[in-house]
Amino acid sequence: MDSAPQLDDIEAAAARIAGYIHRTPVHTSQWLDALCTAQVHFKCENLQKVGAFKARGASNAVLSLDDEAAARGVATHSSGNHGAALAMAAQRRGIPAHIVMPANAPAVKKAAVESYGAFVIECEPTLAAREETLRRVAAETGAEVVHPYDDARVIAGQGTVALELLAQVPDLDVVVVPVGGGGLLAGVATAIKAMKPDIEVLAAEPAGADDAFRSFGLGERQPQSNPQTIADGLRTALGELNFPIIQRHVDTIVTVEEESIVRAMRLQWTRLKTLVEPSGAVSFAALLEHPERFRDRKVGVVISGGNIDLDHLPW
Amino acid sequence: MDSAPQLDDIEAAAARIAGYIHRTPVHTSQWLDALCTAQVHFKCENLQKVGAFKARGASNAVLSLDDEAAARGVATHSSGNHGAALAMAAQRRGIPAHIVMPANAPAVKKAAVESYGAFVIECEPTLAAREETLRRVAAETGAEVVHPYDDARVIAGQGTVALELLAQVPDLDVVVVPVGGGGLLAGVATAIKAMKPDIEVLAAEPAGADDAFRSFGLGERQPQSNPQTIADGLRTALGELNFPIIQRHVDTIVTVEEESIVRAMRLQWTRLKTLVEPSGAVSFAALLEHPERFRDRKVGVVISGGNIDLDHLPW
Repeated sequence: MDSAPQLDDIEAAAARIAGYIHRTPVHTSQWLDALCTAQVHFKCENLQKVGAFKARGASNAVLSLDDEAAARGVATHSSGNHGAALAMAAQRRGIPAHIVMPANAPAVKKAAVESYGAFVIECEPTLAAREETLRRVAAETGAEVVHPYDDARVIAGQGTVALELLAQVPDLDVVVVPVGGGGLLAGVATAIKAMKPDIEVLAAEPAGADDAFRSFGLGERQPQSNPQTIADGLRTALGELNFPIIQRHVDTIVTVEEESIVRAMRLQWTRLKTLVEPSGAVSFAALLEHPERFRDRKVGVVISGGNIDLDHLPW
Repeated sequence: MDSAPQLDDIEAAAARIAGYIHRTPVHTSQWLDALCTAQVHFKCENLQKVGAFKARGASNAVLSLDDEAAARGVATHSSGNHGAALAMAAQRRGIPAHIVMPANAPAVKKAAVESYGAFVIECEPTLAAREETLRRVAAETGAEVVHPYDDARVIAGQGTVALELLAQVPDLDVVVVPVGGGGLLAGVATAIKAMKPDIEVLAAEPAGADDAFRSFGLGERQPQSNPQTIADGLRTALGELNFPIIQRHVDTIVTVEEESIVRAMRLQWTRLKTLVEPSGAVSFAALLEHPERFRDRKVGVVISGGNIDLDHLPW
C-alpha cells in the first residue's frame, strides 16, 4: 500500500491492532480549562504501549505482513519511539526487528528498544547516515523496512487515535496534533475529515523545526535543515507520502517556541499528574501560545508520548 | 465522633463525599509486575482532587458539620495536602478555611492552598508551634478544627479508598499503605478487616521517621523525634486516636530506606507515566525493599499523592 490510506484502511488497522495496543484514556483538568478558557480533552497516548502513539502504526505494519515476509523480520531507523514500537510489535509476533538509531538518541529510548529483544544498530545522527545504514541492514537480512512515518500502513495505524478520540468525545470543535514526519497528523486528519469534516484539524510544530509549517504555506515540500528543538521526536523532515495528505486534510499549522513547550510540559505534569515528553507537549503548547484560536471551544489535544530521561529534564 | 470509626461510618462518608471527590483509577504495568514477580494494582490517589487522598477525609469533615458550625469555618495545621484538601472542601461548601502551615512547606503546596481561597497562616516548623498557632486561630475565628489525621471524621473519609479499591480489585492478597499520622492507614485497615479480613494490611514507613514501626512493635505509642526523610507528608507523629485502630487492624509495618523511595518514584514515573510524590512512593518502595513478602501475590498499592515541586526533585 503506497498510496494515501482512506478511512476504511484506518478502520481495518483498528481491528487488526486491537489486541496489540491500549485504548488510551482522555483526561481533563478544570484548572487547565480555566487557564485556557476552553474545554480541553487530552488524548493520552503517553499511556500507550511503549509510551507513545507509535505502537499503533508499527503494530499495523507488522500485522499487515504475510507469514513469509514476516519471517524475515522488520527493520527501521528511528530517533526512538518508533523503534521501540516496531521492536514491541515484532517481539509480540515472534519475528526479528533491526533498529537503526542515531548515536545521540536518549539513553532511555535505546534501552526501551533493547528491552523488546531487538537488534540496535547505531549510526551518525544525520538522515543520510540513517537511511544508508538502514539500506545496508535490510539488504543483509531481507527484513521488511517499515519507515517511521512515510508509509501508508503506519499512517493508517496512527489514524486510529482519531477513531478512539471521536468515540470518546464526539462533539469536538478542533483537534490539535504535533507534527514531525507527519505520520500521526496525516492519519488523524484523514480519519477526522472523513468522519466529521467540520472539526478543525490544527497541527503544532516547534518553531525551531518548522519544515511542515513552511511547506504547508508555500504549497511545496521544504527541506528540514539543522532543526533546533528540545522536541526530539519532531526533528525529522515531513514525509513525501504524508505531505499531500496533510495539504488536503489539515486546516491550520502553527509554530510554538521552546519556552511554550517547556511550560506546557510542566503544566501537564503538575495538573494532569502525567508524564509528557517534549514532543508530546507541543500540541498543548499551541493552546498556550495561540489562546485566541481556542477560546470557548471544545478542544482535543493529542499527547503523543511520555518517554523522557528523568536525568535530563529541560528546566 | 471521637471514637474509632466503623465500616458503616466509612460507608456513610463515601455517600456524603461522592460529589466532592474522584473515584480514582487503578493502574497496572506488566514491566513492574515482572520486576516484582507479583501482580501489582496501583490505586492512584495522586489523581484525586487536590492531588492526594486527603480530599476524602477533609470533605467528610466539612460535610459532617451542621450549618451553624459550618458558617464559622474550618481550621487546621498541615504540611500541605490536608491543608489544600480542607481549603478545597470549604470553598466548595462556601465557608472560610484557615490553614496553619510550617514556613518550610513546599512552595507548590502553599500555592495550592491559596488557590482555593483559604487564609494561610505561617508558623515555625515544629509540631508545638503548629498546634499553638492553630489554637489561637480557632479561638479568634470560632472555626471548627479539623485535625489532619487524629479525627474520626477524617479517618472515616480516608477509609473510602479501601471501599473503592476492593470494588475495583476484589481478590487482593495484601494492601500496602504509607503511614505518617495514620489517618489513611487506620481508615483503610478498618474497612478491609470489616469486609475481607483475610487480606493482609501492610503499612510502609520511611526508616528516617519510623515512630509507627516502633510504636507497633513496642505496643505503646512512641514519639516522633527529628524525622529525616524526603517523604515530607510522613514526618508527622502517629495520632492518638489512630494508634489503637492500627494496633487492632494492621497486620504488618515495614520501614523503607530513602534510596528505595527515590527508586520507587522513578519507576512509577517512567513506567506508569504518573507523577508520585515521595510520600506517595513509600508504599511501592516496600515492594522493592522487601520483595519476598510479595512474591506471586496480588498486591494493592496505594499511591497517596502526587504533589511535588518540579524544581526540587530528589535526584
